[in-house]
Formats: sequence, structure tokens, C-alpha cells
Amino acid sequence: MTPYQTLCTLSKEVALLSSIEALLSWDIETYLPPGGIEARSEQMAFLATMIHSQTIQPTFLKNLRKLIDLKSGKFLKKNLTKEEKANLFHWRRKLKETLSLPAHFVTEFAKTTSQATTIWQKARTEDRFSLFLPVLKKIISLCRKKADYLGYEEHPYDALLDLFEPSMTTKKITPLFAELKEGLCSLLSSIEKKEKPRDDFLHQIFPASEQLKWTPKLLAAYALNKNSYRVDLSAHPFSTEMHPSDVRFTSRIIENHPTSHLFSTLHEAGHALYAQNLPVKYFGTPLCEAISMGMHESQSRFWEVFIGKSKAFWRYFYPKLQESFQKQLKKISFEEFYRAIHIVKPSLIRIESDEMTYSLHIIIRYEIEKALIEGSLKAEDIPEAWEEKMQNYLGVSPSSDKDGALQDIHWSMGSFGYFPSYTLGNLYAAQFFEAFQQRNALWERSIQKGDFAFISDFLKTNIHRYGKLYSSEEILQRITKRPLQVSCFLSYLKTKYEKIYCDEGPSSR
Amino acid sequence: MTPYQTLCTLSKEVALLSSIEALLSWDIETYLPPGGIEARSEQMAFLATMIHSQTIQPTFLKNLRKLIDLKSGKFLKKNLTKEEKANLFHWRRKLKETLSLPAHFVTEFAKTTSQATTIWQKARTEDRFSLFLPVLKKIISLCRKKADYLGYEEHPYDALLDLFEPSMTTKKITPLFAELKEGLCSLLSSIEKKEKPRDDFLHQIFPASEQLKWTPKLLAAYALNKNSYRVDLSAHPFSTEMHPSDVRFTSRIIENHPTSHLFSTLHEAGHALYAQNLPVKYFGTPLCEAISMGMHESQSRFWEVFIGKSKAFWRYFYPKLQESFQKQLKKISFEEFYRAIHIVKPSLIRIESDEMTYSLHIIIRYEIEKALIEGSLKAEDIPEAWEEKMQNYLGVSPSSDKDGALQDIHWSMGSFGYFPSYTLGNLYAAQFFEAFQQRNALWERSIQKGDFAFISDFLKTNIHRYGKLYSSEEILQRITKRPLQVSCFLSYLKTKYEKIYCDEGPSSR
Repeated sequence: MTPYQTLCTLSKEVALLSSIEALLSWDIETYLPPGGIEARSEQMAFLATMIHSQTIQPTFLKNLRKLIDLKSGKFLKKNLTKEEKANLFHWRRKLKETLSLPAHFVTEFAKTTSQATTIWQKARTEDRFSLFLPVLKKIISLCRKKADYLGYEEHPYDALLDLFEPSMTTKKITPLFAELKEGLCSLLSSIEKKEKPRDDFLHQIFPASEQLKWTPKLLAAYALNKNSYRVDLSAHPFSTEMHPSDVRFTSRIIENHPTSHLFSTLHEAGHALYAQNLPVKYFGTPLCEAISMGMHESQSRFWEVFIGKSKAFWRYFYPKLQESFQKQLKKISFEEFYRAIHIVKPSLIRIESDEMTYSLHIIIRYEIEKALIEGSLKAEDIPEAWEEKMQNYLGVSPSSDKDGALQDIHWSMGSFGYFPSYTLGNLYAAQFFEAFQQRNALWERSIQKGDFAFISDFLKTNIHRYGKLYSSEEILQRITKRPLQVSCFLSYLKTKYEKIYCDEGPSSR
Repeated sequence: MTPYQTLCTLSKEVALLSSIEALLSWDIETYLPPGGIEARSEQMAFLATMIHSQTIQPTFLKNLRKLIDLKSGKFLKKNLTKEEKANLFHWRRKLKETLSLPAHFVTEFAKTTSQATTIWQKARTEDRFSLFLPVLKKIISLCRKKADYLGYEEHPYDALLDLFEPSMTTKKITPLFAELKEGLCSLLSSIEKKEKPRDDFLHQIFPASEQLKWTPKLLAAYALNKNSYRVDLSAHPFSTEMHPSDVRFTSRIIENHPTSHLFSTLHEAGHALYAQNLPVKYFGTPLCEAISMGMHESQSRFWEVFIGKSKAFWRYFYPKLQESFQKQLKKISFEEFYRAIHIVKPSLIRIESDEMTYSLHIIIRYEIEKALIEGSLKAEDIPEAWEEKMQNYLGVSPSSDKDGALQDIHWSMGSFGYFPSYTLGNLYAAQFFEAFQQRNALWERSIQKGDFAFISDFLKTNIHRYGKLYSSEEILQRITKRPLQVSCFLSYLKTKYEKIYCDEGPSSR
């Protein structure tokens, strides 16, 4: 075997173990009997150890060194294909990351965050930030240490960001998010003066059994391979991939909140489509992986929001929805429904927020995380900072920590640096959507008729099939001819919401 | 760490990997998207390799050698507890087994049987034994080789038997099975002359949704820990255990065959109860494992047949069943139902056979397997031998291989030596049931009233909680004061069926 082939073989072993890990996690959220969680944690901890030792095994290191300089990243062999170069680049990246973290640190981090998740749950239930504070302090200090181990050029938070969104930095994000915040706040204030659409009819009872029948109806819009995915229900919708041939996602049903099921299905199926379309012939190497968390999120948001909240989409689906829920929707016009799914309402909880205010929730978290990691904010001052920022950006502020800084699981898991991916996903998606519209001028007409195949096709051809061959920046440049920017997203929102909030809506009954 | 502690730690790692393997297998039968099977096979093959190398790792070997002589099995340390001795005994046993099989042989065996399963499926679908013959020949030759590698004293088949039923030998089984065959054949011929009960009403449509409601009703009879198991549906009911806190089993629903769901639930829940009650504090060591395949089967059959087909059981449940299925059962008396679930009817297919003829199917397989391994029967002569034995023992014979020698998956998996466990399970269960009756003279009265807890208690106290501390022989001796024998099972059948077939049954309507 050539060194490259050896690397592929060893990389595949890690990929197989990781795919097993993904199944174990999926099972926790779906079918694991509650009593089995302790045994499952032990299985997962052991698997993590195996993955770690497989990742840094000497044979892998030795062979990688033959093809790429670990320090500089310079390729040491001529005539490498661009696919080989991409794999070597990502193998080196991952290896450096793994090697930079001492074993004792990894163990301490895992142990602390594992305990912290339980403490966080208790603290949230009891609405006591002080209960979470000691372990949160420890996690922040560990994350700061992690940044030092991983290394960074300008800001320690960059090292953490990079884990989820390679080569993203505070220097790039800070001005983007500032511009976004300004744009969103100004949009919000212009909307606030307008009359709110009604959405009372979306809080009637929509029976679970009928809602469930809508999963396949919506999924028919995606060119998903039916043999290779499954959908289940879980408390928090998520998607995961074991392999392009085994992709799983979940949705949830809330009887008096039917849009939760509709839009979480659209969202998660967007992730699933990406996972199915990754280039399977490279399975086991980075080439068969998604570019980044943000890019994955862009695929789910593309479907959930840009397609799934478009007029054309509901022109096709709303009559069918009315048919399924005659009692609830017979008297509700298309316009009323369309306006109702676009209600903008500043709220306390991120995961319940609308597409306009969502990013403000993320920006708040970004600013707090960055300040915590650089040391300009102390953990005990989070609730105060939270309240202040919520008030300033969204005009509402939590009366309890449960609805404030304790609402997300991420910090207890040590996932500092993760939150920005959500908003980056929206920004990417907005740029892709602009390109999509330019290349498919008649997209609305097609969708209205129930022709959706060209959407999956656009995403597959331009993004999915490349796996990690290109970086986020490169993919953006290839498709949109522009770097990352907020103007696309802002102008999409502006155009859309000005129409919705300026049209003379039907008066409430 | 002491050598014993080291062994426990390393043994637990293997147990964790095996429990992960069990989850992957469970998922194949329940929720895996069909397209994902190839990726799953790769995951499982890799996991098997890891388990193998963990099992024979030098540190384990070195520490085991300090405590037990690998050759003679003599303990090398004084003051070992009986629990420690049991673990050392089983660790040595397993290690010897694993070490005796060369890596190239294990790979060849796995590869051959993996291909063979696919070939068997095709051969069965096309009803062509000749298609399966070449690979079956290879498997027989590999199993013969396996027996040589594993070693045996008298008969090569003993080495294979021992994998499923430790220390069971052809010398012990052959006379037992001969006696059993004679007894069963004589019982059968005495029944054949009598009028058959009617069971036409059990072939009406019993809606799946109503049948499903019966799962929890039946399970209420078991003292199962509700937090630690789950039930799903699958094509072939099975049960599996990841850990005493995560036990899973399946049932199946056939709308015009409601007893399939009832009795497969009772059967698999019997396995599940055993798995839940294993001594969890020893998890990771043999002490937290079931004694043998046959002993596991005894626990499922105890519930399915000895309890689940008793009059007392249905005195309690039948009125409830009638209530659930008024249209189907309102006019069917208790006696009619009870007789219907005891219909004896020689048939071609093992898994569809009744409790009287079932063991004859097993005996046929045992005789053929033994002859194949010792070389007194050639693989090409299996169909003829099958037909002859079916005719002699059961009075029916298959007109096709599909309903004959191709009906079971076992041979394609290389599981020679497995079949006898099924009948041994029945024999064990019959002896346990006799002891159970002696110690619980009023058991029928209790069950009739819906009091079942003492059954689980009897099994837990006398069998489950010991794990592998005692062998099958020792457990039998402890509970029944007698070695393995067929008389218990035969006299149970005789008493029961003479009553059923002699009572003047209600005339058919």
C-alpha cells in the first residue's frame, strides 16, 4: 500500500468508529430506555478513547509525514490530485488538533462537561444560576486553556471558533455581526409600529396523528433516497449521519403548535439531504464530510426558511394543508396563513424565535462567549450582561435565569465557539439563495406546481457533492462570486417583511 | 491494581464493545434504513476485529496467567472467592477458545458465512438447494476444522456444542434425544386418533392496533424494570441485552394469527427478565452473563409455555382478551380457546410448530448436523435425509427444499451446534417448572387472581441473580436435585395433552 492508501485505510477505521458513536447518540435521543443512560455513557466514553488512540496512532503519523509537512502544511509529494491534497490538509488539521490536547486535559474536559450537563439541567429546572456558576467557571477556564493548547494568532476565541467553522475568526465575525445587529434592529423597529398578523388559528389543536402524515408529504419535495434515511420523533429535533446511506433525523409534534413539526421537518431534512449527497466513494476520508457546522446549518436553513417560508412553497402546500385540517384552516385564507408563519415577535427563548430575531439571540451569545474567553466578562456577571443585551437588542428581558442564560445546553457541554455557526448558516444560505434565484428565474412557478427536484439538484451540484474539497470561503466564492457578507440576508428580510407588514392584512376577526 | 482488578477492567472494555455490537445488531432488525446495511456490515466487521484484539491482548494474558494455569485450569492463588474463581474459569475458557482459532481462519470463517447468508436467502427464495450446496460444503468443512482447532475428547461435534452449551456432549445428548423422540412420537400417535380442537376463530382478523395494546397487558405479569427495557416490532421476534439496564426485545403482529404476538411477547419477555436480573454489579465480567444459550431459552420457554399456556394464566387473561376482541371471541368459551392454543399438528416449519412437535424438528437437525460433522452424511444427501426423518418422526415431509433443509438461517451463519439449545431449553424449563410447582403449591390460584410477582421472584432468586456463577448442571442440581432428564418434559406434555385431547371438547359450530 502507498502511504496515501494506508492513510485512507486508517482514516476509514476512525470514520467507522465515529459512525458507531453517532448511532449511539441517535439512540440516546430516540429509543434508549431511560435506565440505560449510565451504561451508554460508559460505552461512549470508551469509544471516544478508542477513536482518540486510533486518530493519533504512530502508523498514521508516519505516513502522513511522508506526504505533508506537519508544521508548515507544505505538500511533500508532487502530482497530488486536488482530492488528495484536500484529504491531507484535513488529516493534518485534525491530527494537529488532537495532538495539541494532552490526554489528561481531554479526560478532565470530558469529565467536567459530563457532570456539568447534569448540573445545568438541575440548575435550569430550579432556575438557579448560582448552582451552575462553579462548574461554568471551570468550563470557561478549561476552554481558555483549550484555546492555548490549540493555538491562535489574534484572539483565543478564534481557536474555539475554528473547531466548528474552520478559519473563522473574531476579526471576521465581529464587524459582520455588528452590521447584522444594526440592520436587524432597524428592521425590527420599523416592523414594531405595524399591525401584527394574527396567528391564533395556529394554536388550535392539530391532532398528532394528522400532523404525522405531513412528514412524508413535505419530504416529497426533497430528492432524498428513500432507502437510506429514517425519521423519528424526539424532544429536540436533530439530524445525524452514520454514512450517506444511513442518515437519520427527528421531528417533534406539539398539538397546539403545528408549525413546529412542519418547519423542524423542513429544517432537519435539509441537513439529511446534505448528508446523503456527500461523495460516498470517499467515505472514511474528510472528503466525505460536511464543510463545517455553519455550512451544514446553511443547508437546513435554505430549506426551512428560504424555500419553506416562500410564498411559492405554500401556494403548493397550503391547499393540501387545509384539506388535512379542514376544521382548523378552512376559513383561513392563504394570505392569512402566510402572514401568520412570518410573525416577528421578540422573545426570550432562542429556539422559539422567528427568523428575524433569531440572529440577535446568537449575537448576544457570541458577544458574551468572546468576552468570557478573553476575560473581559466574569461568569458571575453573565445574567446581568444577558439582561442588558436582551433589552438593548430585542427589547425584552428575562425575569429568570431559566429563560435567560440557563436556556441553552451548549456551555455545559463546553461547546464555546459553536453558537456563531447558526448565524453563519443563515448568512451562507441567504447568499446561496440569491445565486439560486439568479440561476432559476422561474423557481417560484416550478415550486407552485409541485416541481421541487431542481432545488436538491442545485444544492447537490454546487455544494453537497464536493464534501470537504473546498472550504466555506471557496464554496461561497464559487457559487456567489462574493465573500461572506450580511447584505444578502438583510435585504432578503427587508424585502420580504416590508411586503408582509405593509400589505393591508385581513382585519382580525 | 491487582492482577484480578486489571482483568476486570480489561474484561469490561470487551463487554462494552460487545454491548455496542449488540445495539448495532438490534438496530439492523428494527430501524436501520435498508440502504444502510452495507455500511453497517463494515462497522460490525471492524468492531469484531477490535473485540478480538482486546480479548487476546498481552496484558490480559499476563495477568490471567498469574491467577490460573491456562493449561490445567488450576487456580494459582489461594483464598480466591467463588465469584473470582468463576470469572477466572470463564476468562480462561474464552481466551483458550479465541487463541485456538488462527486469525486467518477467523477471517475466512467470517467472510464465508457472510457471503453464505446472502446465497442461502437466494437459494431459499428460488427453492434451489443446489445453489446453497457449494458454500454449505465449505461451511461444514470449516466447522469441522473449527472443532479440530477448539479441541474435543470424543466427538468433533462436542467442540461446537460447547460454544453454545458449555460441557454439553453428544454422549450426553444422543441418549436423551433418543428417549425424547420415542416419547414424543408415542404421544403424537396417541393424539392423532383423537378429534382435533377447532381453532378457526384464531384466524379471523384481529386488528394490529388492538393486538399492540396487549403487549403491556402481558408484560404486567413480569416484574420487569420499566425504565430499562423496550419492545419494538420486527419480522422475527428476538431479544438482546446491552446491559441489565438496557434490554430490548421485539414481537410481531400477524392480523389473522393473534397468538403469534401473544406468545412471542411472552417468550421474548422471558429472555428480557433473565437479562435484567443478571447481577449488574459484576457487569463487564462473565458473572453478569447468562449461563448458556439453552439456559436463556429455558427462561423464555418457562414463560411462554409452562406459565403462558397454563389454564390458570388464561383464566386470568382470557376474559380480558374477550373484552378486547369482542367480535372475534365473544362466543368462544374459555375451554375452546384453551384447547385451540394447544392444537398439535405435525408441520414442515420449525418456527411454526407446536410445543409437542417442536423438539422433533430440533432432533432432526441435531442428527443431521452431527452426521455432517463426523462425515457419515454428505451435504448433497441432506434433502433426502431430511425428508426421511420428517416422514419417520412427524409423518409429514416437505415437497420442496424451501420448506425443508433451506428453512433455517443457522447453517449459513456457521452456527453448527446451536440447534440443540432450543430443546435443552425446554428440558431445563420443564425441570424448573416441576420445582416451581412443588415450592408454590397454590401457584394456579395466585395466577388466576392476577398475582404473578412470585414467578419472577422464583426465577430471579434461583437462577438469574447468579449469572455464570454456576454451570447449567449445577443450577439444575441446586433447584431440581436431579441432573438433566427428559422425563419431566414428557410427563408434563402427557398429563396436559391427555386431558386436552380426552376431555369431550365442545362440538364445532
